[in-house]
Amino acid sequence: MASFRKVAMLKVIAEDFIHPEAVALVLPLYRELVALTRAEPLCIAYDLLIDDRDPGHFIFLEEWPDRAALDVHCATEHFRRLVPLIDAHQRAPGRFTFMSNSVDPA
Amino acid sequence: MASFRKVAMLKVIAEDFIHPEAVALVLPLYRELVALTRAEPLCIAYDLLIDDRDPGHFIFLEEWPDRAALDVHCATEHFRRLVPLIDAHQRAPGRFTFMSNSVDPA
Repeated sequence: MASFRKVAMLKVIAEDFIHPEAVALVLPLYRELVALTRAEPLCIAYDLLIDDRDPGHFIFLEEWPDRAALDVHCATEHFRRLVPLIDAHQRAPGRFTFMSNSVDPA
Repeated sequence: MASFRKVAMLKVIAEDFIHPEAVALVLPLYRELVALTRAEPLCIAYDLLIDDRDPGHFIFLEEWPDRAALDVHCATEHFRRLVPLIDAHQRAPGRFTFMSNSVDPA
């Protein structure tokens, strides 16, 4: 059943829930993470947005060629150094959604 | 505090949670919704992805110039006709995230 289409890449939504009082602390960490990740050769897209209704809810919209590229990202020095520093200010566990298929017009 | 940047558009993540047995029923409705929405003059981006770990979890990644444009979308004939037909197969309420600010490298 060709009801949906395998996309040529892996899309990821990675959501962090940060204590409101720690937002100013994590912003420079996030800025460094975005800069260094966008410089990775396998990174297609890596945007970090903020929920309009919750300033501690940070949403990464990511695109990678495949799961192996995402694994390379998660093993980088900057990821392994910065993510634990950010996660120390979580108010709830992160939420991760992986998407390899899209629904497209016939 | 210029810690984050107002993006030039409104990004939206709209998530539907559909009963597994209804996925085949909603796919043609989604395909029509994507086709007609992409044809709207104010639509910047409107992609529909499927959660790799939950085939009933459908995720719209949307970009609109502003909230007014999103309101126009929600008032179209195709939205008002198709969304209730899709929502009839929901197993849980939809989740909507609106994002007008991004975190960018310095």
